Amino acid sequence: MSSSYLEATSLREEDAGPPGDNPRRKIAQLSDKVVDSNPYSRLMALKKMGVCPKYEDIRLKTVIVVGVGGVGSVASEMLVRCGVGKLLIFDYDKVELANMNRLFYTPDQCGMTKVAAARKSLSFINPDVQIEDYNYNITTVENFEHFVSRITGGGIDGGPVDLVLSCVDNFQARIAINQACNEVGQTWFESGVSEDAVSGHIQLLKPGELACFECAPPLIVASGVDEKTLKREGVCAASLPTTMGIVAGFLVQNALKYMLDFGQVSNYLGYIALKDHFPAMTLRPNPECSSAWCRKQQAAFQAKLAATPAPTAKAVVAEPAAPLHASNEWGITLGDDDDDEPVSASAQPNTSLADGIVYAHVSSEQEKPVLKSSDMVDGGGGVDLSDLMAQLKGVQS
Amino acid sequence: MSSSYLEATSLREEDAGPPGDNPRRKIAQLSDKVVDSNPYSRLMALKKMGVCPKYEDIRLKTVIVVGVGGVGSVASEMLVRCGVGKLLIFDYDKVELANMNRLFYTPDQCGMTKVAAARKSLSFINPDVQIEDYNYNITTVENFEHFVSRITGGGIDGGPVDLVLSCVDNFQARIAINQACNEVGQTWFESGVSEDAVSGHIQLLKPGELACFECAPPLIVASGVDEKTLKREGVCAASLPTTMGIVAGFLVQNALKYMLDFGQVSNYLGYIALKDHFPAMTLRPNPECSSAWCRKQQAAFQAKLAATPAPTAKAVVAEPAAPLHASNEWGITLGDDDDDEPVSASAQPNTSLADGIVYAHVSSEQEKPVLKSSDMVDGGGGVDLSDLMAQLKGVQS
Repeated sequence: MSSSYLEATSLREEDAGPPGDNPRRKIAQLSDKVVDSNPYSRLMALKKMGVCPKYEDIRLKTVIVVGVGGVGSVASEMLVRCGVGKLLIFDYDKVELANMNRLFYTPDQCGMTKVAAARKSLSFINPDVQIEDYNYNITTVENFEHFVSRITGGGIDGGPVDLVLSCVDNFQARIAINQACNEVGQTWFESGVSEDAVSGHIQLLKPGELACFECAPPLIVASGVDEKTLKREGVCAASLPTTMGIVAGFLVQNALKYMLDFGQVSNYLGYIALKDHFPAMTLRPNPECSSAWCRKQQAAFQAKLAATPAPTAKAVVAEPAAPLHASNEWGITLGDDDDDEPVSASAQPNTSLADGIVYAHVSSEQEKPVLKSSDMVDGGGGVDLSDLMAQLKGVQS
Repeated sequence: MSSSYLEATSLREEDAGPPGDNPRRKIAQLSDKVVDSNPYSRLMALKKMGVCPKYEDIRLKTVIVVGVGGVGSVASEMLVRCGVGKLLIFDYDKVELANMNRLFYTPDQCGMTKVAAARKSLSFINPDVQIEDYNYNITTVENFEHFVSRITGGGIDGGPVDLVLSCVDNFQARIAINQACNEVGQTWFESGVSEDAVSGHIQLLKPGELACFECAPPLIVASGVDEKTLKREGVCAASLPTTMGIVAGFLVQNALKYMLDFGQVSNYLGYIALKDHFPAMTLRPNPECSSAWCRKQQAAFQAKLAATPAPTAKAVVAEPAAPLHASNEWGITLGDDDDDEPVSASAQPNTSLADGIVYAHVSSEQEKPVLKSSDMVDGGGGVDLSDLMAQLKGVQS
């Protein structure tokens, strides 16, 4: 398994299938021509309508998707249909009938590796996308090194990729992605769906600027319990194509906003399906993060800020001096709860906040407080999200 | 085209493809056994976890999906992967390469009717689902009558279907679905995505109890302008697989909650992608609705309420006496803005509301005010959602 990545190539001839089956030929350049035969007309319309001024830049972008299960496979399909330049997919699982309750894979693919099945479907859908597939576990030492080298050199131009999307289902893999991205300063998105299938989230992680995965670790990670020991015979996590499709949609929508520079990118967006509730917040880095690379990135970010006295510098968070309360020992800062008017951080009165907690980069209605870890772990053992929200809300109002 | 529905059958032999290709055989009964070969194990886990007490009832449910384009095809796939008993799909369009920027259809299906392509893919994914496909336009007189007969007699037991999902892209079709559902008292969900691809919504319509599509018509419908005259040569609507996948996810998630009786069903849920904002509200029927069938259903609902003096009767809206303001002439009532505590409608002070506007059925944090029509019509001509929200919020706070 560990050497299979040596076989990865850019685009295989057989990917597109026999010529008679597929009318989709490679297209050299994105066109905005409105004809039924143009697969890009509806995307280039985003440019015409002023939503995304340079949509054609999508072809210059490279995205890594780690984990092509219920969320990652759909996220990959969305990126490919959007015409992303290059996609690198990582997984070491195989397709099973038990996966058929989620989108993307089909019963005839059972037994194939997920990356091989995904690569075949994705390149058939859009042969313009360069695809690299890696059938390995990124958490082993050898594979981890190779994984890092793909982050730094896997871009369509041979440089770093534009974004890493984490769509894995375990903490060990998240920690590995976090470590890799902290080391090389790579921006990435985390995603997760709860084991009861009815909540999920996405989270943006910018090394040094936003909390890393270890800054505010889920209880199970902080406590050092091996997550594998929690699995029980005859019991499996629930999953739904709806929840996973929605989380994949949030993930790729925000990836598009981030890469193509339009709209507001969410730092954290949750989805509570039973109530159609969407918590949002911003998590700042923990100065005492257990990751030395994270602390290094924080110092670099602060140094960069100090060197460039921009008008927004005033809004940047100072190192949190005191915890908000016992459940918030990681220096989480709160945004504004107003739904309509953007708030200038410097003009925002701090009277209602505890000492050491300051507003930071508050600029949209999405900044509502909530902790992140509880909707990713199993329903039983985690922090109760509603309780925490009520507490945080009490502090804010 | 109008007679093609005569060819529809329940499940064709050839749908599942040659036996060698597909390991998925028909399964007589949903099992919760945790093995890789069970396509229902992750769904039945919802039952084990207490999320959905009777998940197996999904097999008794029948859903109609009108329009299997960017939203309807994904919604259909989600329903099929969830193991719905029976699905009836309606469309009269063909697959084109220009559809490839959305999920579901593949390039080899170009030229096929959407219903034939969808039926083939869906029954390959899950041969347990009974599928009827109708390649016709429901708005012609003859087809409309047949469409109504499928609502009342298309259920898996020969009775009415459980739910109709509208996934069409024009107002004429929405009006036809509205008329059909008002006539026969069928509950349905409306859905829509804006022409600039970055917003969308779903809406629950219960004849007599909630606003129908004509109770608060979009300006273009109210003004009598033929929507076809607004199309311009060389210009097409933008679309994104992300937005459409998310709207399909919201639609089917709420359909599952409604049919299987778990969680809270949203009466209206919007999605504003650029800000990750999710407006929610409840629209009550307009006593002066232009649809006579709607007024009849309203009278029947009120009579039913009067005959059953339930504890919640106090919370039911009285007929709105005066409009909120010029933009709100349809008797829209406002919900509560609090994110955490359910509010008893009868205990809610009305001091901040204008005369004639009363709280109704307020019971969750999802009830936030917003008008519905502007994010469904083209970006230019509609009501401005932000303005209306600001106005409504002003009234409420």
